[in-house]
Amino acid sequence: MTLAVRYLAARTLDTAPARSVKPGPGEVEIAPAYVGICGTDLHIFHGDMDARVAVPAVLGHEMSGRILRVGPGVQDWAPGDPVTVMPLRWDDSCPACRAGHQHICQHLDFIGIDSPGAMQQRWTVPASTLIRLPESLPLDRAALVEPTAVAVHDVGRAQVAGGEKVVVVGGGPVGVLIALVARATGADVRVAELSAHRRLLAEELGLTTWDPAADDIGALVGAWTGDAGADVAFEVSGAAGGVDTAVDVLGVRGRLCLVAIHPRPREVNLHRFFWRELTLVGARLYDRSDFERAVALVADGTIPADRLISKVVPLTEAPAAFEALEGGGDVMKILLDCTDTSPDHDYGASA
Amino acid sequence: MTLAVRYLAARTLDTAPARSVKPGPGEVEIAPAYVGICGTDLHIFHGDMDARVAVPAVLGHEMSGRILRVGPGVQDWAPGDPVTVMPLRWDDSCPACRAGHQHICQHLDFIGIDSPGAMQQRWTVPASTLIRLPESLPLDRAALVEPTAVAVHDVGRAQVAGGEKVVVVGGGPVGVLIALVARATGADVRVAELSAHRRLLAEELGLTTWDPAADDIGALVGAWTGDAGADVAFEVSGAAGGVDTAVDVLGVRGRLCLVAIHPRPREVNLHRFFWRELTLVGARLYDRSDFERAVALVADGTIPADRLISKVVPLTEAPAAFEALEGGGDVMKILLDCTDTSPDHDYGASA
Ligand SMILES: NC(=O)c1ccc[n+]([C@@H]2O[C@H](COP(=O)([O-])OP(=O)(O)OC[C@H]3O[C@@H](n4cnc5c(N)ncnc54)[C@H](O)[C@@H]3O)[C@@H](O)[C@H]2O)c1
Ligand SMILES: NC(=O)c1ccc[n+]([C@@H]2O[C@H](COP(=O)([O-])OP(=O)(O)OC[C@H]3O[C@@H](n4cnc5c(N)ncnc54)[C@H](O)[C@@H]3O)[C@@H](O)[C@H]2O)c1
Ligand SMILES: [Zn+2]
Ligand SMILES: [Zn+2]
Repeated sequence: MTLAVRYLAARTLDTAPARSVKPGPGEVEIAPAYVGICGTDLHIFHGDMDARVAVPAVLGHEMSGRILRVGPGVQDWAPGDPVTVMPLRWDDSCPACRAGHQHICQHLDFIGIDSPGAMQQRWTVPASTLIRLPESLPLDRAALVEPTAVAVHDVGRAQVAGGEKVVVVGGGPVGVLIALVARATGADVRVAELSAHRRLLAEELGLTTWDPAADDIGALVGAWTGDAGADVAFEVSGAAGGVDTAVDVLGVRGRLCLVAIHPRPREVNLHRFFWRELTLVGARLYDRSDFERAVALVADGTIPADRLISKVVPLTEAPAAFEALEGGGDVMKILLDCTDTSPDHDYGASA
Repeated sequence: MTLAVRYLAARTLDTAPARSVKPGPGEVEIAPAYVGICGTDLHIFHGDMDARVAVPAVLGHEMSGRILRVGPGVQDWAPGDPVTVMPLRWDDSCPACRAGHQHICQHLDFIGIDSPGAMQQRWTVPASTLIRLPESLPLDRAALVEPTAVAVHDVGRAQVAGGEKVVVVGGGPVGVLIALVARATGADVRVAELSAHRRLLAEELGLTTWDPAADDIGALVGAWTGDAGADVAFEVSGAAGGVDTAVDVLGVRGRLCLVAIHPRPREVNLHRFFWRELTLVGARLYDRSDFERAVALVADGTIPADRLISKVVPLTEAPAAFEALEGGGDVMKILLDCTDTSPDHDYGASA
C-alpha cells in the first residue's frame, strides 16, 4: 500500500492510502522521492487558505522523484527518469496567458494547492510539467530545485547585475536562495535576518548578515555604499518591519523586489518612492527557463542544497514536521522522504 | 519699484519690494511674466513645509518671462529672450548625480522652495536653468511648461506605449496634463476624478472621465479591457483612496506610476503586487529633455494650456488667490501676472 499525507482541517493532517491514478493521455505517474515543506504549506496547515483548498487535500510542490509509467502519447519520457515538476497549469486563453505570462495566468492551477500535490507515494501529473534532472544529482538535493527556481525568477525580475549591492530582507529558505543566486550573478549581497540560527547558517555559506533587531542598518548601508544606498532590495520576510527595511536601504532609482506574501495591506513609505524614484517589482513563481537554470545551479553546487536541508523525515512523520516548523525552531528546510516505507513494501522486503 | 510675494508664516503672505540682484558670472536676471500656483506652493502656504523653507521666502517655480540682463560670461542669451526656468540646482558630486540622475540629486536645490522663486518682478537665476521659448508662444500659456514637463517625465517613467490602456487617478492640473501627454503618446486614457468641475473640464478636452465616488470602477475597467485590467495607472491624487484605485485597476504586469506626494505612509495592497507581478515606479520632477518636449507640446497646442488656466490675477492679489485655491473651488490653474503694475511703472506710464 502506498501513502499520502492529507490536510483535513486547520492543524489536522493524516496519512491515508494514496490513490494511484492511471496516467491518461499526455500524463505520467511519478513515484515522489523527496518533498520539501514550504511556507505556503504551513499557511494551509494553519487554516489560512481554507477558502482555496478543497479537503481532503494532498499538499506538496517542492519535489523530486522518478517516473513510474507514462500515459498514451507521452514522448521523451520513460519509467525511471529522474524528474522534478513545475507545478503550474494555465488556461492559455486569459489575458495574462495571451500576453505571454502563463505563470501568472488569471486561472492558474497551482498543483499542490489547487489540485493534489506531491506528498504521496504515487502522483500523476501532465508530462508538460516535467523538468528533467541529471542522473548525477542526488534526489534529496533536487527537492530544492523548485524554491531555487523562485529565487532565479526573483533575481531576474529585479534585473540584478554584476557588481550591484543587494540587500535580502528575510533569511528563510527563499531569502537565502535569492542571496545565493544574486551572488552567483556577481552581486555584493547582505542578508538581514532576525533569527540567530538562520544568520549563522547564512554566514556559513559565506554570506554577510545583519540583525535588524540589534544593528543600525541605516549606518551599515551608508558605510557599505558610500551613502549611495543599495541598488536592489528583496522583501522576503513577509513582515511589516521587513517592508520598511527594504524601502529604507535603497538608493536613488533603487529596485525593491517583493517576493513575500503579505496577506494584509502594509503601510508603505510612498514618499520615499517619489523622492528617490524607487521601483517596486512584484515577483511570483517562475517559468520553465527559471526552472532549468535552477536545476543547473543545484546540480553544479552553486546552490549548496545539502547545507539548506535541516532534516529528512519519513512521510508518516509529516504531522510532527509541520508542527516543528510552525514552532519556528532552528530549522531551514525539512524534507519528507516518500520512498516506500509502508509494511507491505520495505518491511516485507527486509523480512 | 518692483514687487515680490513672500511667505512669512503659515497662512501668511505679503508683498514687499523685490530685491533686484545683479547677475553674477553665469547668471541672468529675468523679468517674470506669469507664475502658476502649484500644489507644492499650497503645501508651503499651509505651513506643512516650514522645516524646509527659510522665511521670508519668495515662492514660485512654474513661470515664463523675458531676460532683462545677463551676467559676465553668459553665452547664447540676450535681454528680451523669452524663457522659462528648470528650477533645479544640483551638486554634481553625490551618488545620484554621479549615476546620471541629477534631477534627484541628494542635495537638490529646488528653486522656489529651497531658494528664492519666481513670484516677483525681478529674478536672478543661473543661465544653466534657462529653457528657450518660441517667440510665437504666448507667455501665459508658457507658464504651463513646467507642470507639462512633470507630465512628460511621468509618462516616460511609466514607459507608456501607443495603444496601451492608461488610468489617471486624480484629475487636477498634473493629472490632466499626464492624461494629455499619454494620449499624445497614443494611449487610450481614462481619468478618475472626484470633482465634477474638473471632470467636466477634462471631458471638454476630449478625455473620458470616471467618478470614483459614484461609478463602479472595477466594472468599468473590466468592460473596457476585456477583463485584462489596465496597462498603466498614474496616482496623481495624493489620497489614500487614490492609491487603492490605482492598484485595483491594473492587469497582470501593470505599472503604477506614483506622481503624487504622500507625506504619510499609505496602506498598500502588496498582495496584488505579488499576485499580478505589478510594478510601482516613483517619478519626481524632470530633466532638460522633458522640459524641451514640454515646450514643444505647449507650443503646438497638444497641451491646450489656455483651457487649463482658470484665472490670471495681479501679483498683488496672490494672497487671495492662494486662499481661493485652498478652498478647493472650481478652478484648475491660477496664474499670477507679474508684469509691472506698481505705481511708479504702469500707473506712471499711463498718467
Ligand atoms: N513570490 C513567490 O512566488 C514566493 C514563493 C515562495 C515563497 N514566497 C514567500 O516568500 C516568503 C519567504 O518564504 P520562506 O519560506 O523563506 O519563509 P520563512 O517564513 O521561512 O522566512 C522568512 C524569514 O524572515 C525573517 N524575518 C521576519 N521578520 C523580519 C524582519 N523584520 N527583518 C528581517 N527578517 C525578518 C524570519 O525570521 C524568517 O527567517 C514568504 O512570505 C513566502 O510566502 C513567495
Ligand atoms: N512627482 C512630481 O514631481 C510632482 C510634481 C508636481 C506635483 N506633484 C504632486 O502631484 C499631485 C497632484 O498635483 P496637482 O497639482 O494636480 O494636485 P491637486 O490637489 O490639484 O489634484 C489632485 C486631484 O485629485 C483628486 N482626488 C482626490 N482624491 C481622489 C480619489 N480618491 N480619486 C480620484 N481623484 C481624487 C482631487 O479632486 C484633485 O482634483 C500632488 O500630490 C502634487 O504634490 C508631484
Ligand atoms: Zn491564463
Ligand atoms: Zn547630486
